[in-house]
Amino acid sequence: MALANQRIVYLNGEFIPESEAKIPIKDQGFKFGDAVFDTTRTFGHEIFKLREHLDRFERSMRYLKLDAGHSVDDFISITEEVVRRNLPLIANDDDYWVTQRVSRGLAEGDREAWPDWPDATVLVECTPLPLAARAKSYRDGIQVITPSVRRVAPEMASPRAKTHNYLNLILGDLEVAAQNPDALSVLLDRDGNLAEGKGSNIFLVTEGRLKTPRERFVLPGVSRQVTKELADKLGLVVEETDIDLFDAYNADEAFITSTSFCICPIQSINGRAFSETAIPGPVTKKLIQAYVDMVGFDWYAQYLSRLA
Amino acid sequence: MALANQRIVYLNGEFIPESEAKIPIKDQGFKFGDAVFDTTRTFGHEIFKLREHLDRFERSMRYLKLDAGHSVDDFISITEEVVRRNLPLIANDDDYWVTQRVSRGLAEGDREAWPDWPDATVLVECTPLPLAARAKSYRDGIQVITPSVRRVAPEMASPRAKTHNYLNLILGDLEVAAQNPDALSVLLDRDGNLAEGKGSNIFLVTEGRLKTPRERFVLPGVSRQVTKELADKLGLVVEETDIDLFDAYNADEAFITSTSFCICPIQSINGRAFSETAIPGPVTKKLIQAYVDMVGFDWYAQYLSRLA
Amino acid sequence: MALANQRIVYLNGEFIPESEAKIPIKDQGFKFGDAVFDTTRTFGHEIFKLREHLDRFERSMRYLKLDAGHSVDDFISITEEVVRRNLPLIANDDDYWVTQRVSRGLAEGDREAWPDWPDATVLVECTPLPLAARAKSYRDGIQVITPSVRRVAPEMASPRAKTHNYLNLILGDLEVAAQNPDALSVLLDRDGNLAEGKGSNIFLVTEGRLKTPRERFVLPGVSRQVTKELADKLGLVVEETDIDLFDAYNADEAFITSTSFCICPIQSINGRAFSETAIPGPVTKKLIQAYVDMVGFDWYAQYLSRLA
Amino acid sequence: MALANQRIVYLNGEFIPESEAKIPIKDQGFKFGDAVFDTTRTFGHEIFKLREHLDRFERSMRYLKLDAGHSVDDFISITEEVVRRNLPLIANDDDYWVTQRVSRGLAEGDREAWPDWPDATVLVECTPLPLAARAKSYRDGIQVITPSVRRVAPEMASPRAKTHNYLNLILGDLEVAAQNPDALSVLLDRDGNLAEGKGSNIFLVTEGRLKTPRERFVLPGVSRQVTKELADKLGLVVEETDIDLFDAYNADEAFITSTSFCICPIQSINGRAFSETAIPGPVTKKLIQAYVDMVGFDWYAQYLSRLA
Amino acid sequence: MALANQRIVYLNGEFIPESEAKIPIKDQGFKFGDAVFDTTRTFGHEIFKLREHLDRFERSMRYLKLDAGHSVDDFISITEEVVRRNLPLIANDDDYWVTQRVSRGLAEGDREAWPDWPDATVLVECTPLPLAARAKSYRDGIQVITPSVRRVAPEMASPRAKTHNYLNLILGDLEVAAQNPDALSVLLDRDGNLAEGKGSNIFLVTEGRLKTPRERFVLPGVSRQVTKELADKLGLVVEETDIDLFDAYNADEAFITSTSFCICPIQSINGRAFSETAIPGPVTKKLIQAYVDMVGFDWYAQYLSRLA
Amino acid sequence: MALANQRIVYLNGEFIPESEAKIPIKDQGFKFGDAVFDTTRTFGHEIFKLREHLDRFERSMRYLKLDAGHSVDDFISITEEVVRRNLPLIANDDDYWVTQRVSRGLAEGDREAWPDWPDATVLVECTPLPLAARAKSYRDGIQVITPSVRRVAPEMASPRAKTHNYLNLILGDLEVAAQNPDALSVLLDRDGNLAEGKGSNIFLVTEGRLKTPRERFVLPGVSRQVTKELADKLGLVVEETDIDLFDAYNADEAFITSTSFCICPIQSINGRAFSETAIPGPVTKKLIQAYVDMVGFDWYAQYLSRLA
Repeated sequence: MALANQRIVYLNGEFIPESEAKIPIKDQGFKFGDAVFDTTRTFGHEIFKLREHLDRFERSMRYLKLDAGHSVDDFISITEEVVRRNLPLIANDDDYWVTQRVSRGLAEGDREAWPDWPDATVLVECTPLPLAARAKSYRDGIQVITPSVRRVAPEMASPRAKTHNYLNLILGDLEVAAQNPDALSVLLDRDGNLAEGKGSNIFLVTEGRLKTPRERFVLPGVSRQVTKELADKLGLVVEETDIDLFDAYNADEAFITSTSFCICPIQSINGRAFSETAIPGPVTKKLIQAYVDMVGFDWYAQYLSRLA
Repeated sequence: MALANQRIVYLNGEFIPESEAKIPIKDQGFKFGDAVFDTTRTFGHEIFKLREHLDRFERSMRYLKLDAGHSVDDFISITEEVVRRNLPLIANDDDYWVTQRVSRGLAEGDREAWPDWPDATVLVECTPLPLAARAKSYRDGIQVITPSVRRVAPEMASPRAKTHNYLNLILGDLEVAAQNPDALSVLLDRDGNLAEGKGSNIFLVTEGRLKTPRERFVLPGVSRQVTKELADKLGLVVEETDIDLFDAYNADEAFITSTSFCICPIQSINGRAFSETAIPGPVTKKLIQAYVDMVGFDWYAQYLSRLA
Repeated sequence: MALANQRIVYLNGEFIPESEAKIPIKDQGFKFGDAVFDTTRTFGHEIFKLREHLDRFERSMRYLKLDAGHSVDDFISITEEVVRRNLPLIANDDDYWVTQRVSRGLAEGDREAWPDWPDATVLVECTPLPLAARAKSYRDGIQVITPSVRRVAPEMASPRAKTHNYLNLILGDLEVAAQNPDALSVLLDRDGNLAEGKGSNIFLVTEGRLKTPRERFVLPGVSRQVTKELADKLGLVVEETDIDLFDAYNADEAFITSTSFCICPIQSINGRAFSETAIPGPVTKKLIQAYVDMVGFDWYAQYLSRLA
Repeated sequence: MALANQRIVYLNGEFIPESEAKIPIKDQGFKFGDAVFDTTRTFGHEIFKLREHLDRFERSMRYLKLDAGHSVDDFISITEEVVRRNLPLIANDDDYWVTQRVSRGLAEGDREAWPDWPDATVLVECTPLPLAARAKSYRDGIQVITPSVRRVAPEMASPRAKTHNYLNLILGDLEVAAQNPDALSVLLDRDGNLAEGKGSNIFLVTEGRLKTPRERFVLPGVSRQVTKELADKLGLVVEETDIDLFDAYNADEAFITSTSFCICPIQSINGRAFSETAIPGPVTKKLIQAYVDMVGFDWYAQYLSRLA
Repeated sequence: MALANQRIVYLNGEFIPESEAKIPIKDQGFKFGDAVFDTTRTFGHEIFKLREHLDRFERSMRYLKLDAGHSVDDFISITEEVVRRNLPLIANDDDYWVTQRVSRGLAEGDREAWPDWPDATVLVECTPLPLAARAKSYRDGIQVITPSVRRVAPEMASPRAKTHNYLNLILGDLEVAAQNPDALSVLLDRDGNLAEGKGSNIFLVTEGRLKTPRERFVLPGVSRQVTKELADKLGLVVEETDIDLFDAYNADEAFITSTSFCICPIQSINGRAFSETAIPGPVTKKLIQAYVDMVGFDWYAQYLSRLA
Repeated sequence: MALANQRIVYLNGEFIPESEAKIPIKDQGFKFGDAVFDTTRTFGHEIFKLREHLDRFERSMRYLKLDAGHSVDDFISITEEVVRRNLPLIANDDDYWVTQRVSRGLAEGDREAWPDWPDATVLVECTPLPLAARAKSYRDGIQVITPSVRRVAPEMASPRAKTHNYLNLILGDLEVAAQNPDALSVLLDRDGNLAEGKGSNIFLVTEGRLKTPRERFVLPGVSRQVTKELADKLGLVVEETDIDLFDAYNADEAFITSTSFCICPIQSINGRAFSETAIPGPVTKKLIQAYVDMVGFDWYAQYLSRLA
């Protein structure tokens, strides 16, 4: 049943072909989304900021009292091995998402059929980045729409933990996709401030200053952190603050950040283009260049090269 | 690898041993909890109100725009077959949970290793009820604690859909279990009203009247509905209304309802016992008896028979 | 400057051509939207429920402490006269919106240029109904989208008063029109319940029962009231209650009501079609027929007759 | 009909007498308050910070997707011309409010009677400042009362846009005026923090530090900005932060800022006088002096000179 | 030190002169307001609905886990004795408030100076009703003002318990008294609905129907309950529901209820008089008469007889 | 009745034995908790930061419009005298809490039995610190639990005033004590952020940075202020910010501050121990040492010396 030449996944201590990487239907990660994950990417086949991602991974686990039985250093070794085994499977100019996952495994009453399954399900896997599918976004900018559903509030489940509970964000995606399948959903928080999309942070640029939502209401993206540091080096002020649609409609430029997108320009928010109509705008462009320089790999050119 | 004489699961068109019932690590039900389920039980090996559960299952699917590719009638046939195959595996005086699950399957970019996996992952399974573990709750009543975490608000993700996103409820469980592993967590909603626990509804009895939280903030349990109908037949008034800790501390009796618990008396809420100290209280007792009569099976005796 | 054969408007005691019906730039109705209005329509050139609309008009005025200096009876006489004068200007099979408006007129410091302007600006006017533009909605149903902006909360300004402050609703329209110019915006209230669109109420039909938002959060439409009474006569249960997107996505049918639309079927909410796919659905159809019978004029046929 | 020697208004391309400056009753600025404005003033017949006001005017327009068809530079020229024409009408020691307004003009279906009316209604006008009426406030301080109505929340309509929708603020004024016609209403926001009055910002002075509400919840007044800059020059710390009635009742001094008031001392909040009982308090006094110096015109003396 | 001929108080088992009725400065009822009370009154020297008040008293105690060490029957005997001893001290046409109080007494570490003080401090006392001071309110109606401070929310401390924590209500009184010492403060709840004043419930009358706030947000007054029952007998509909200022400003009549006020007409809310300008309005009058008939004592005449 | 050799209390102008220090049952501080207080302590028999505490005491009074009729200087003299008189009563190695209280005294209608009672009840008292009872907390750390009840919101009654209304905090204590009598209740605010316990502030330490809740939602403790200043001197960053359970579960260390506790390490929050498992953690330890140095008295050793 295994496919020839397929990717290798680390699952509970073993390196196995992806087609064999399955979890029991009673795994609590499946039944309840009771699991956390983290994802970095490779740039030119080099893993990016793995330790930063794994530190965040640990914070997600602590929040949910999940014990992986693996240290950050364990995860580093495993991740490097997984990537090493899978790199031969992609072209030189392709790259990977690199993901770790830990679920709460099987509850006591659910172990009968899988008596040897460990206490926590531990996974490390690679997925090729969808470079071609996203190329257009770098050329034209992403259209952002704010759906009516609000981001889950921190007093219910903190958006700072990266978990397997994405239905709140998926409800936003469904609203937005029904109107515009190319658009990106960015949810407002319970107070009506911009929060985040599925795996992406948002930045506005206004009179040369950057604003991004407060960490309390969003996943603190590693690329968001990188962007803040780059902006700092470029002498740009960055504020973590409450930002709303008044800010959005009056911004000069805007962009999203994510591990795989790095920095991707936004074309419009709710159909409102920005006063700065170049894509990317001048500040965004500077940050993209700084980002490329910092990683020493031109991911921006990589994306654009896939334009049909 | 399969265990001898193990339970059979329906998975994507096949009846297979539970130990082989696994899902790809990229199934969206696992990655995002992007899945719904429903669960009924058997009473004396007869399935209870299957159609009512499947109607609710359909509502959960519609809320999330999930298409199982199976009708309610399909699920009835499959469920009956799964139960039929598994009944021989339990003792005459044991019973099953009977569960259907549908996830959004594999996203387009994730199908490479499982090219033939269907659009939606569809599961039907049985699990023996933990009768012994719960026997004490029927004798002594359950201790309920309200944790500090609040139930996810309907404008974020409706509690009326029974989904694979349980982290909000699990955060409540973790708070409560740290104080008292025997206690049941019942979350308050964002306004401070009693909402629900993981799979259970709550009722208070005050001066012969029943009160239970409004449907908007909780899963509308089938047993909750059954209880309302039984109360009605017994001439008891039932209100769906906002109830808070003032109501709870001043109630005469209280109980939870759930598919498997049916009706189980509550001993105390936040350590406060009720003015009616018999367990179960007189109204609860009447409802338990009516419930037993209605299903034609003495599940209450069944639970109590397992007392050590 | 006056156009030949144009409509007549009542303004501050005089019946004048619409082209001459202007208000000072310092009128508080313009500067602050400090004004209220109400609107009914004609059916076959007969004014509909004028007194009910004027009673609501009075309630809007009382909320804002506006004194029109005209009684309900005054407004009835004036309105009848305005309609009488304007009926010759439309075809036999056309009809009018009929509107009364009262603003707070000029503040003390703003009267210099208009010393004789009265204390309150009082207007009665007619506008032909846009029958052709709406015909398609009756055939196909309206597409409803819930924007991210929330309806103003009652503790800030009650949605029950029909005022000249529509920006909150217009912000919703702008979000929706940017995605789909044919769609109707229906805002959620601050708690995430369905509220209302610009001048329209919403009803869901689920298992033969009607649900519509509570009056506290919406304008209590006269057609909403008519629909409730008709449903009652047809033996249908109607609940005023909190309804949210879970209800909407699981409804069998849905429709909006408004003075001019009367009852118009909804095709979808956020792209979700209903389980009842006929337009109008069977319950909506019955209500439309009852509405037509009640007014003694087939406004439904009138709309559909304008299909291109 | 025109009054002799009256003020000139710019309306849609023409300079006309104010008594002729009227807008159609169907203008959306009137029907819905669908319009924005901005207002500066003259000091000794010189226009103050016109560009800053027009930049804010543009932000209000962008928020509402209003297109004036005029650039900021256009508005500067027009405004200067309007002021130039009207200055001869006031005494040397009087001054003007100078106001720009843009509404969304006539909707498609409303143009019949005014076929040539432009897409946006554009106005520039002057109004003499009510110096005498306010003189007492500078001598005694303003009495501030916080009404029970709450300021509209940003997720409903941003208070940062200066629009023709003032009913929320007017509801506050009505509550306050019923108790004390001389008092100024300052609304709390939805969280109970001090927000703003109709056209005025509030500052507290506590142990030499200034505090004023966050911009997200109030109109960002130009005089508020000026005051912040002046305080900065005087070595005073200014915080934009959440401030509530505990802060207010414990402040040493307080004052409001607005374009026309510049800085005006507050006598009391909800009847509570400040620990610093001089009017103006020492910090307020310093800021008034700095403000006078900055504009090079003693507006404070101008106000006080009108004391009866 | 005792005054001649003074009132007798029951304190911790003894009947003592009021001037000797003191509690230790470390009593938790003093230090923390950690105490509850209830109050009824006499009508023509007869105690009114003592058991109903004591049942509510018990609910307040249960909410706070206070144990008085006295049953309802104990309190009835003690109360009757206290009243019996004090009746000789007032004129025939005067009446008493009759009050029970229980505090949590002294904490373990605070008993040193009062080693014999019991676990709970228990008090029963009488106070003459201020008939003359209130006479004007029955003739002219009470002026109600809604302050800006919001009633404490049930998730913080339930307004249904009658406790010694009144600062939230006192903050409302201070706001209102600063504007109008004769006015009564009625707070809005956190959602902007009318809640309650210090010891009084509010009713609106609109088109012959009565509305009063939901119990969840107010003390469930015994007189409120009496009024509901009387209305019922008179064939008037009473709704417990969310009511806000739109309702208030559009009501025909309004009144408050309290143990001592029984039913007292409201003249205006925030300066807005009602459409029914008679004091009391016709429905209020009918209810007052029914109340008088029910208790068999003309308390209304008693109040009015004290008009100066 | 007075005990031999007992403590002296200042009450309304007199220095009297504690057993005689009683207040009338009608004192508004008792009836309504209408009173404020402040508390400092002695270190080695020296009063700590008395003026800072009295400044805060004044702010509490101003918030509630309470007039003590005593200046801060008056309170300093009285307090010093009270301490002087009571010091001989404790051992050399014991210390006192030192407390001032002011209530609104007797209302006009309540003075009959106490005609000479002053307008405000004024108290100054001493209580020995419970050193032994707390010793374990310094060795093991305090277990913190967040109850489900939320801290009263500032728009209802500001937590910044130290008043006699503690029921909200007591409701939290009751929830927590029912689970674990040794644990400390720390309430969340209405937004789900950590707020405060009964008389204690909370600090988290994360990667060497300190975080503590914003003053708007908590009593601004003098020891909290001291800790901030000490941290500053030690080069540690302290942020006043919104912190929630995600922060708490991911903190390295945590501690509470209060006048009497000074700094006491936290062992766990909701059963979650910290990554830094030493008690006290290294940063907490440094701050304790700095605190000890600053006051010149080893209160930490004093507490630990009482370990059984």
